[in-house]
Formats: sequence, structure tokens, C-alpha cells
Amino acid sequence: MSGQQDLAGEHCRPLRGSEHAIDPTQAAALLSSLLGWQIDETGCLQKAFGFSSYTATMLFVNMVAGLAERENHHPDLEVGYGRVIVRYSTHDVGGLSRNDFVCAAKIEALARI
Amino acid sequence: MSGQQDLAGEHCRPLRGSEHAIDPTQAAALLSSLLGWQIDETGCLQKAFGFSSYTATMLFVNMVAGLAERENHHPDLEVGYGRVIVRYSTHDVGGLSRNDFVCAAKIEALARI
Repeated sequence: MSGQQDLAGEHCRPLRGSEHAIDPTQAAALLSSLLGWQIDETGCLQKAFGFSSYTATMLFVNMVAGLAERENHHPDLEVGYGRVIVRYSTHDVGGLSRNDFVCAAKIEALARI
Repeated sequence: MSGQQDLAGEHCRPLRGSEHAIDPTQAAALLSSLLGWQIDETGCLQKAFGFSSYTATMLFVNMVAGLAERENHHPDLEVGYGRVIVRYSTHDVGGLSRNDFVCAAKIEALARI
């Protein structure tokens, strides 16, 4: 898991105007360091998290939102009782950027605390 | 808007085991007292809310979550930067109950504060 540890220690960086989405080979390499994340049919990096109470669900939502503000990179969230689906993509490149994987790795680290 | 005011002042009540979903006529009557809510293609009562910042978005999410806990009736939420879609339905009746409309009216009242 050293790849994931490294990724979680990075920060999102501003994207250059000319920057493109990362290619599938790079995406697959980054994905392999994340536990249980997948690239969904719309090209988003996503994972579903389960919780035993609504309080635990909302604590997680707020931790993810705090991280989103600090990194200035905001996921889409689907929130129900005891479940949250987190989806990242990078609008400015029209696909996935390294920033999406950095945030996913940080959320993995959060979920283990 | 007196209908909406009345609905917002109610509380969710526990459902009897034999209770059925409300019928389309009752649903239409309750819906007419709510501003901008609709019944979506899956039969959920839903509304999309827009916000000018992520902070405002998350404050709204947390107000809705607090209401959900107090009323013990929890919506599905789709949360992105500056937008929240709220969807209510009542699992125990396999459709819509009056509780869904009570919570929608309370959220309308929250959104005006």
C-alpha cells in the first residue's frame, strides 16, 4: 500500500489550461493503489461506503466536505441512511486527473481513522 | 400557502404495519401546496436546490440531516458544488406517505430562513 500512502500525502494542484485528462494506462496504475475504488460507466472514480448509523454517515460526509474545501476539489456525493457514494472527476480536463486519485487516497486514509 | 404552512407544522408519525402508500389524488393535492417539488420517474418526491458556495451547500445538507434525524425520516441526497437534490419516499409503504410531504414542507421552511 505504499503507492496509496504516497498519494494520500500529496495535495491537489491547480491544473494548467492546456492540461488533458490522464490516459487509461495511468488511470489503471493509480487505481491499483486504491482499495475498492472503481471507474464507473461515466468515467468517474467512485466508491460506496457503508455506515451503521445516520450520525456516522453524516460525520463521514462532513469529513469529505472539509477535505473538498481544503483541496478545492469537490466530489459528487450520493447520501442515504448508512451509505455514501463518492464520485470524483475533473471538470476542467473533461475526465480524470491525478487530483481525483489524490482525494480518493485521502478519503481512504480518513475512513481508516 | 396556508396548506404548506400547516404541513410544515406537522411531525412525521410512525406508520402502521398495514399502511399503504397514498394514492395519486392525495399525492397531487399535497404536492400542490409545495413550491417546486415534483414526483420523479421513480415515484420519489424531489426538489433541486442551488447555492452560491460550497459552505452554503453543506450548511443546507446539515440542516436537512438534522431534520431527518429529529423526524426519523431520512431522504436521499445528491450533493455537488452549489447543488443538492433532495428525494423522499417511504420504504415501509413502498411509495409516498404523508411523512414525505411533511418533511418537504419543513425543508421549504428551512430554505426560507
